Amino acid sequence: MPENDPRPLAGVTIVDLTRVLAGPYCTLVLSNLGARVIKVERPVRGDDVRDVGPFRGGFSLYFAALNYDKESIEVDLKSEAGRSVFERLLDRADVLVENFRPGTLEKLGYGWEALHARWPRLIYGAASGFGHTGPMSRRPAYDLVAQAMSGMMSLTGYPDQPPARVGVSIGDMAAALFLSVGLCAALYKRRETGQGVMVDVAMLDAQIAILENALTRHLVTGDLPQRTGTRHPNISPFQAFETSDGRLVVCAGHDELYHVFCDKIGRPEMKSDPRFVTADDRRVNVAAMQEEVESVLRTRPTAHWLEVFEAAGTPCAPVNTVADAVRLPQVEAREMLRAIPDPRIGTLWVAGNPIKISGVAEPATHRPPPDVGADGARILAELD
Amino acid sequence: MPENDPRPLAGVTIVDLTRVLAGPYCTLVLSNLGARVIKVERPVRGDDVRDVGPFRGGFSLYFAALNYDKESIEVDLKSEAGRSVFERLLDRADVLVENFRPGTLEKLGYGWEALHARWPRLIYGAASGFGHTGPMSRRPAYDLVAQAMSGMMSLTGYPDQPPARVGVSIGDMAAALFLSVGLCAALYKRRETGQGVMVDVAMLDAQIAILENALTRHLVTGDLPQRTGTRHPNISPFQAFETSDGRLVVCAGHDELYHVFCDKIGRPEMKSDPRFVTADDRRVNVAAMQEEVESVLRTRPTAHWLEVFEAAGTPCAPVNTVADAVRLPQVEAREMLRAIPDPRIGTLWVAGNPIKISGVAEPATHRPPPDVGADGARILAELD
Repeated sequence: MPENDPRPLAGVTIVDLTRVLAGPYCTLVLSNLGARVIKVERPVRGDDVRDVGPFRGGFSLYFAALNYDKESIEVDLKSEAGRSVFERLLDRADVLVENFRPGTLEKLGYGWEALHARWPRLIYGAASGFGHTGPMSRRPAYDLVAQAMSGMMSLTGYPDQPPARVGVSIGDMAAALFLSVGLCAALYKRRETGQGVMVDVAMLDAQIAILENALTRHLVTGDLPQRTGTRHPNISPFQAFETSDGRLVVCAGHDELYHVFCDKIGRPEMKSDPRFVTADDRRVNVAAMQEEVESVLRTRPTAHWLEVFEAAGTPCAPVNTVADAVRLPQVEAREMLRAIPDPRIGTLWVAGNPIKISGVAEPATHRPPPDVGADGARILAELD
Repeated sequence: MPENDPRPLAGVTIVDLTRVLAGPYCTLVLSNLGARVIKVERPVRGDDVRDVGPFRGGFSLYFAALNYDKESIEVDLKSEAGRSVFERLLDRADVLVENFRPGTLEKLGYGWEALHARWPRLIYGAASGFGHTGPMSRRPAYDLVAQAMSGMMSLTGYPDQPPARVGVSIGDMAAALFLSVGLCAALYKRRETGQGVMVDVAMLDAQIAILENALTRHLVTGDLPQRTGTRHPNISPFQAFETSDGRLVVCAGHDELYHVFCDKIGRPEMKSDPRFVTADDRRVNVAAMQEEVESVLRTRPTAHWLEVFEAAGTPCAPVNTVADAVRLPQVEAREMLRAIPDPRIGTLWVAGNPIKISGVAEPATHRPPPDVGADGARILAELD
C-alpha cells in the first residue's frame, strides 16, 4: 500500500480461509476498509460457492459478489508443502479469518492455542453457526438454521401466515458484521498490547443479539413477540398500505403527523373518529385503520401519494423491488453500486462500501474476483 | 478503567448524542467491548424512547435494552452552559456518535469541519437514514422506510402474500453494526495518524450492502429476486416444513443429504421419483416436494423429527419462538442472556455480547440503564 493510503485498514494483511457467506462477507467488509485479503483456497474447487449459480461466463456471481478485491492462492492444508506455505503466510499476517465448523482447524494443528503460541501477534477470527464453545458448538448450521432457531423467523411475516425467512441471509450477515467489529477492535487493542486474540462469533448469538428489545420485552414481561406483517407493534398508522399500483409505507407516529395524514388523504373526519382519536385507539383499531386508509390509497398510484406525503413532511417510502432500489438517485449519489470490468463476466456489479469515511474516496475501480489460485505465483514470490 | 482491562476498547471514551435505536445500538456494541459511553441527553425527557413502552416500574424496557452500562448527563446544547459542558466533554473524548437528521448538529455549530478543526483527534460517527450527502440526505427516515425503499421488504415473506417487514429493525441494526466497524477501524488508524475522521453510515446504504448477491444477480442478469417464504431460491429441500405440532427447517442441500433425508422420513422411493432425482428436478418441483414431505412430517411432532434428523447428521432446527430460543442451553452456555438487578425494573434481562474474545470474561454484572442525567454530577466533577 502507498504510505499515505487514507483507508483505515491499509497495511493490514488478512489470511482468509473463509468460504460460502459469513466469513467472506466479513473479509469483504475489511477489504473495503483497505485491508489486503489473501484468500487461501483448497486446490481446484476452491471456495464452495464457486459452484453456486447463477453463472456468467462460467463464473459464479454468488462468489463474485463476495470476493472482489481479494487475492487467491491454492493451498492444500493437508500436504506438507501446503502447510509450509500457509505458515509462511501467517508469518506475515495480521489477521486469520475462518468459518469452518469448530474443531476443523484444530484438527489440522491450527487451533487457537497453537496459533497463539507460534504467532503471538496474530489475531484469529472465527465465524460459526453456534460458536467455539457450548454443547451445540460442533453442529452444522446454515443461515436458515440460525434464523429458525433464534426466533428471528417467528417474528417475520404475517400473523395469519407461517413464519417467513428474512429475505437476505441475515444469520450470516449479522455474524459477519459482529466479527468485523471484533477484529477491528482487536487490531486497535493490539497496538497497545502487541498481542493477538481470538474473536469467536456465532450466527445464533448474533441473531439473539439483534432481537434486542423483543428479547428484553419477552424476558421481563413474559409477552411473546409476534409477527405483525409490516405493522409497527404499537404505533398506527405505521405500516405498508396498498395503492392502485403497488404499496407504500407511511410512518405517522404521533397525533400531529396523524392529523396531517388524515387531511392529506382527504379524510379529515378520521381525526375525530372515535376509533382513532388517541394513539392507543389507533393501536387497538389497527385493522380498521388499514381498511379505511387503503380504501382511499387504492384510488391513486403510489407516485401520487408519495408526492402528497413528501410535500407534507410525512415519513413515507415506496415498497421497492431490488430493481427500483438500485435506480434511486440517492444510491447513485452515495456510490453504493460499483461496476467492475471483468473479462469473464463482462461488467460485474457489486454493492459498494456503506462505511463512508472523510478523506477516503471510493476507489476508481476494484480487482475482479480471482480464479482459484490466480495470485499464487506472485504471493509465493513475496514469501521468499 | 483498570490498566489491565483486557477488553479491546477499554480506555476509549465515547460522547453519545444518540437516541432511539441505530445510534444507541452502535454505542452499546462499543460499550460491550469496553468503551465508556457518556450519554448526553436533552434535559428532562432525554432519549425519545424513554417514552416508548412497554414499561416496568415506570421505566421503558425499550430504552433499557439499549442503554445499560451507559452513563447519562443532561445537557441543553442550545444553552451557553450546556455547550460549555459538551465542549469540555469533547476535550476528553475519543469518539462522538450521533444519529440526528443530517444538518442538525451543523446548525448547533458542531458540524464535522468545526469539530475537526477544534478537536483534530476526535472521531465522529453519524448514523442517519440516507447519509450526510446526496439528494435525499435530509429526509426523515425510520427503519420501515429503509426496509421498504431498499428492496429488503420485497424479498421478505411469501410470493403469494404482500411483502413483510423483517421482524427486527434490520434497517437500524445493520447501520449500527457498519458504524461500529467504521469507528473501530478509525480508532485503529488514529493510533498511526493521530487524526480523527468522520464515519458516515446510512440505513439505506447498509440495506443495499446486505442485499449482497441478490443485488449482483439482479444487476448482472436482469433477474428480479423474489420472496420465497422460507425456501432457498435454488436448493430443495431447504426450507421450513409443518409437523404435527409446529415447524422445523431442513437443509438437505445435495444428493447425499437428500437420500439420507428420504430414508429417514420413510420415503426411500422419493430418491428415484422422477420429479426429485437431480438437484435441478428438486428445484423445479419444489412445491410438490413440500407437499410430499409435509404429508409425512405432519404425522409426528417436531421433537420426533429433530431427533431423527440430528441422529442422521441432517442440518435442521425447530422454528422457535423467542421464548423457545432463550431457553436453548447453547444460548445459556454462550452467556447470551444477562440479568441486571435494577431497582426500578426488578431484574432487567438483556442480550449479551456476541463478540467473544479470548481472555475477556463476560462482566459479572452490568450497570442498570441510567435515568436522565443520573451521572451528571460525577461527570461534571471529572471535568473540573
